[in-house]
Parts: sequence; structure tokens; C-alpha cells
Amino acid sequence: MAKKKSVRKATGSKKSAAKPGARRKRSRRGEDTGAKIVELAESVVELARNETDPFVDIPIRALSNVDFNAKTRYIEMGDRTQRRNFFNYGQAKRFMQTMLIASKCKDNVEADKSVSIRGIYYLAKHTIKGTKEKTFDAQEECDPILEDLEVALESLREELHVYASSRGAMIGELTFVDTGDTIDATRLGTGGYAIPSIVEPNVIQFKKCNAKFILHVEKDTVWRRFVEDRFWEKHRCILTHGNGQPPRGVRRLLHRMHNELKLPVLVLMDNDPWGYYIYSVIKQGSINLAFESRRMAIPDAKYIGVSSFDYERFGLSDDVKIELDANDIKRSKQILNYPWFAGKKPWEKEIKKMARNGFKMEVEALASKHLTFVTDQYTPQKLKDKKSWLD
Amino acid sequence: MAKKKSVRKATGSKKSAAKPGARRKRSRRGEDTGAKIVELAESVVELARNETDPFVDIPIRALSNVDFNAKTRYIEMGDRTQRRNFFNYGQAKRFMQTMLIASKCKDNVEADKSVSIRGIYYLAKHTIKGTKEKTFDAQEECDPILEDLEVALESLREELHVYASSRGAMIGELTFVDTGDTIDATRLGTGGYAIPSIVEPNVIQFKKCNAKFILHVEKDTVWRRFVEDRFWEKHRCILTHGNGQPPRGVRRLLHRMHNELKLPVLVLMDNDPWGYYIYSVIKQGSINLAFESRRMAIPDAKYIGVSSFDYERFGLSDDVKIELDANDIKRSKQILNYPWFAGKKPWEKEIKKMARNGFKMEVEALASKHLTFVTDQYTPQKLKDKKSWLD
Repeated sequence: MAKKKSVRKATGSKKSAAKPGARRKRSRRGEDTGAKIVELAESVVELARNETDPFVDIPIRALSNVDFNAKTRYIEMGDRTQRRNFFNYGQAKRFMQTMLIASKCKDNVEADKSVSIRGIYYLAKHTIKGTKEKTFDAQEECDPILEDLEVALESLREELHVYASSRGAMIGELTFVDTGDTIDATRLGTGGYAIPSIVEPNVIQFKKCNAKFILHVEKDTVWRRFVEDRFWEKHRCILTHGNGQPPRGVRRLLHRMHNELKLPVLVLMDNDPWGYYIYSVIKQGSINLAFESRRMAIPDAKYIGVSSFDYERFGLSDDVKIELDANDIKRSKQILNYPWFAGKKPWEKEIKKMARNGFKMEVEALASKHLTFVTDQYTPQKLKDKKSWLD
Repeated sequence: MAKKKSVRKATGSKKSAAKPGARRKRSRRGEDTGAKIVELAESVVELARNETDPFVDIPIRALSNVDFNAKTRYIEMGDRTQRRNFFNYGQAKRFMQTMLIASKCKDNVEADKSVSIRGIYYLAKHTIKGTKEKTFDAQEECDPILEDLEVALESLREELHVYASSRGAMIGELTFVDTGDTIDATRLGTGGYAIPSIVEPNVIQFKKCNAKFILHVEKDTVWRRFVEDRFWEKHRCILTHGNGQPPRGVRRLLHRMHNELKLPVLVLMDNDPWGYYIYSVIKQGSINLAFESRRMAIPDAKYIGVSSFDYERFGLSDDVKIELDANDIKRSKQILNYPWFAGKKPWEKEIKKMARNGFKMEVEALASKHLTFVTDQYTPQKLKDKKSWLD
């Protein structure tokens, strides 16, 4: 699949002349989120006035409608949509919920307030007048509705003023403004800047960047090693971590820094299937959040380590070895078959080498050489030896 | 149990004249950690030179040796120790491991470097010369040894230069120095300061505090609500969160701010057994880390909400109710029996009221009133109404 993403929604109003099924222009993405919600609402009202069954077309968020686009080099959603009608016993509740969440988002956008996904559930939950029926019985009902809205409006959750949990931190050669406060990320001690969930341009603006690249590491404990050894200063970079699988805010910030500051993103993960997977999410996006790849994925990100070949390359001792278990082997095979890994010779060699090794290695295992080996020797050597990078 | 904590270790050297079993003076806590490790080593060497079986006495870290001290109002370790001998088939390996970890800690203290618990495992792991025996086979072997050392040396893990995972953040009316960088926590935008794992005075010094109190909330999503609404500014406070059960760094920072800056610590948790428990850990310490209560626990911390009585007190709708499950009911009963809750009438009423309600409530549920109800009305009213606080 290499088609452009198309998003359809209910139409019928004169304002939005597009027919259901028509492609929406990409340029709409820059528009105000509040206005998009109003347009959605007006299209529904118009259908009702025309005595037509009101509906919304929601792009399908399922594996069957997700594919890797070899041209953009990220995971995208396909064209298929599902119509949600008001006069349909099986769809009416979800139709109502969609309108309700949209309305709450609009309130928040207008008030310039944001809310957690848990919060929006509570904001929207109430008893329908004259009944004992709740608008939502559980958050599990609310979350997919929010995702529906994201895809239907082509708005990131963050643009709908909804935040996720945040984790991850940043330190390094960047000065930026966060809601009016100028923050010099070289002057944040050992703690660093706690990356928030919403890092859109209305919240964060970049001011001055002396960094030559971004080094993103998997774990906070590894990040701390690099911070303590002031790696960012010696190598003129920005250090980030996402506490494992990076949350949306971290991915979005990396994406923005990469694109707006033209900084290469170099990724340092454990040498295990989970490390490969996290890297692939940063690079190509994830299947679950395929509709957000365009604003999140960084197809030019590079994997600089830890590689299965590093055991020999760096003369490591067997103290670093952690035996692969059955699940690791299964996951490796799955990853090898992902279209974004498949056919890439260096990755095939890398993953097959891990299987041959029979062991995986953590970044922290490099301490078995000596405590600062990872910051003094390993990473500097990796930075120089671009041939060792995986794409 | 209301006895003072006593810690014993191997003796025999002239320098440390105390006999095994003798109480170590509290004042030793201020001493240099490196020197304590050297002393430990010297005592072992001395025993060996005297042709005595070298040993270390390690305070027992088990429920049987842990109790709530009604006078200090935190959970403490008792006096019981376990001797670890070198010439003992069952103990020799752990003896060796204890010395090895101590030696690695000493190296790091001297080099002024710190390391994660995973890192210290890798630093210490190697093959014993002439054998195929590893010093450590898994991290699970290493972690208790580190805890042994903490209690034996009466040094916090952080003083041994070992860091844990970090999570949690801070914003508010405090200016502090972190490794030479002056950080004004009123100028950190929406992200805030990512609280590191090691916040000892050699890393963090407080400079200027305009806060009247610390408000610690359970979740980052709740914290974000308070940050967005600039609660810290309106109410002159410091806002912290620990992403659930706060990690060591957050607890230690709260402890230091409370004691050094004389700031009350007010805790805002979900109205559920887990919220009560997190509060009790902040206040009295935990059974697992009883040996660190003195440096972590904040017996004067207050629980300002959410209380089981808030449903009526604030006229909440049934949208906030989450039905208690069997586990909640079981945990409530356990908590009610903890010596630090038992006998406190207001807590008994609080927990029994939850059982009578049959439901629990999250802080985020207050959004069902309106988005900023928690920051505009709920918390300000709680701050005024000190009688509603739980101690």
C-alpha cells in the first residue's frame, strides 16, 4: 500500500462540499482543531435538517487497514472507513459518544485547557436525562472513541488537548521555550527536563540549538550514565530517554527536533527483540497508532547499538550474555518478517546473528568492561563508525 | 518495639573498637561512606590476621525484625542481626559477594561516579580465576547484597552511589542547585524538573524557597492538571508527583524539603486502598525499606484527600463511583490493621466509610463537576479546612 491516507466524514453541509468518500486535502491539517470539530458537528446537523440519517465516517483502525508505505517509510492507515449512523440500534450509542467527546474536546480547545484520557472520560460521563443510562460505563468505551475522533479529524490527540501519561526526560545542547519559560537544557543539573505529554508548537518553541544530533536511549538508568558523564557536552548533543517504549510526548518531541532542527536521531537500545521493536516504533511508527505516524515517525532514525556483532567487535566477556528464551526467538522471527525489516540485508544479518549468538545484551552490561566504557569508548566509537549503524 | 536501631558489623580492628553486637553511634551516619567501607574491610582483614574466621553481621531485613515505632512514628528495623562467615560453606559465597559489592561501591564513591543497580551487578560480575564460577549468576543475587550493605553500613543506597529508576517531577516556588546548575522551579514550563534518583546534599542544595507547603499528588496526569492551572503560583507551593508509588528519589527529596525547608507535606491521592497505602509509605516508610525510614519517612505528612466523606461533602454525582472489588475490601481491612492506622479514630472512620460507600473515587473523577474543579474549588477548600485532613 502506498496510497495517500484519506479521511472521510459526514458531509451534506454546503461548507464542506466534499462527498463522503472524497479525499480531504492534506492542507487541512494546519487548520484549527476547534474549527474542524465545528465542521464535523455542522455536517451532522445539516444531514439531520435534510432529513437524512446523520452519520460519521471513521477510518478503520485495524491491522487490515494498516500498511507500511515504502515511499514515506512509515506505517500508514489505508483508505477503508466505517460509517457510524445515528438511526442504527447498534451504532446510536457510539454515535452519541463520538459527538459528546468531540464537544468536550471543543470546550477544552476553546478554554485552552488540556485533560488526561481519564479526565475526558469523567468529563463526558453522565446519566442521560430521564433514564438510568450512563453515557459511558467504563473508560474502555471512551478510549476508542477518542481515537476515532483523532483519525476522523486528522488531529493528533494532543491537538484535541488530551494528554497521555508522561515519562522520559531531556538534557543537552538546546534552549527552548515552554509556555513562556525559557529553558536552557544544558543547565538542568542531573535531573533534566521532564518531557510533557503535549509538546506541540503552541506549547514548545525551539530557540537555540548547539546540538549536532540527538541520542535517544531506552532506559532512564542508561540516560543517567550519559548525563553523569556529561556526554551531551563532550559530543554536542541532546540526550533523551523514554523509559522503555517512549510515550507519545517523547516521540513527538523527537519528531519535531528532527524535522525542525534538522538533527539526526541516533537510537541506543538493548540488543534484544524489544530494543529492535522500540527502535522500529520510533522510526516507522506502530500499528496501533498508524494514524499518527506522519506526526510521530522518524524514518531517518538510525540504530547505533547495541548490535549482535558488538560482542566480538568490542571484545566483551561472557558476563554480558543473557540467554535468549523461547519468546525472544519467536519475537526475533516476527520482527524479521515485518515489512520494514524484511529485505534489509544488514538487519537480517543483525537479527540472525543474535539467534546464532544465542544471547542478548543490555546497554548496562557494557559496564562489565568498566563503568564509563559506554560513554568513553563504546558510543564515541559507534558515532565515528557510521558503517556499523543500522538503518 | 520502640528501641533505637542498632547496626553491628565485623570488628576486631583497633580503629573500630566496638564489639560485635555493640551499638553504633548515630553520629556515624554523617561520616564519609567511603571511610565506612574501608572500616568494614579493615575489620575483616584484622579478623583474618588474628586467625579468626572473618565475618560481617548484617541486620535482618525481614518482617520479623521490623516494627512501627510509636515514638518516632515510622517503621523501623529491630536489633536482630545475622552473622555472615567466610569459613562456612553456606555463607562463603555471600561473604565474597558482600566484599565485592562493597569494593565496587568504594571505587564509585572515590571516582564520584554513580551507577544503577543493574550496572553494579554487571560491574561486579566476573568469572572467578581458575574456575568457571561466576561471582553473580543473576541480579536477584546482587540486590539483597546491596541492601545488606546499606543496613550494615547505615548508608543509604544513594550514599553508596547507586541509583534506582527515576520517575516523578517537580514544579513550584523553589530555587535549587543541582550539580552547579541553578534551577528556578517556577520557570520550567509545563514539563518540570525530572526528579533524579540521587538527591543527596552533594547533588542538590536548596537556595530560595517561596513555598508555604508541598502538595504531592499520586499521578502525573493529576500533577499536570495542577501545573496547567498554575496552582503552585496561586497557592505558593511546590507540586510533586511520583507516578504512583513514589520512587526513592522522590521520597528522599520530599523528606529533605520537609525537614530542611520546614515545609508541610500534603498528600493528594485517590480514595482507594492503594492511595492510603502510598500515603502511609510517604509518612511511615515501608516494611521492605524499613532500614531507610529515618531518611525517607515524613511522619508529619498529612492526607488531604480524596476522602470517603468527600462524596457528600462536595455533592459529587454517582459518575465518580467505582465499585469496590473483593481485593479492595481485603486491602482496606489489612490497612485498618496496620499499627500506624489502627487506633487512629479518623482513619478508622475514613476506611469504614469507604466500605459503607461500597465505592472508591479517583482524583480525576472530580472532573465530572468541571475540568478545573480540583484546582479551583476542591483543593483550595481542603487547604482551608484543616479539620478534614487525615493524620
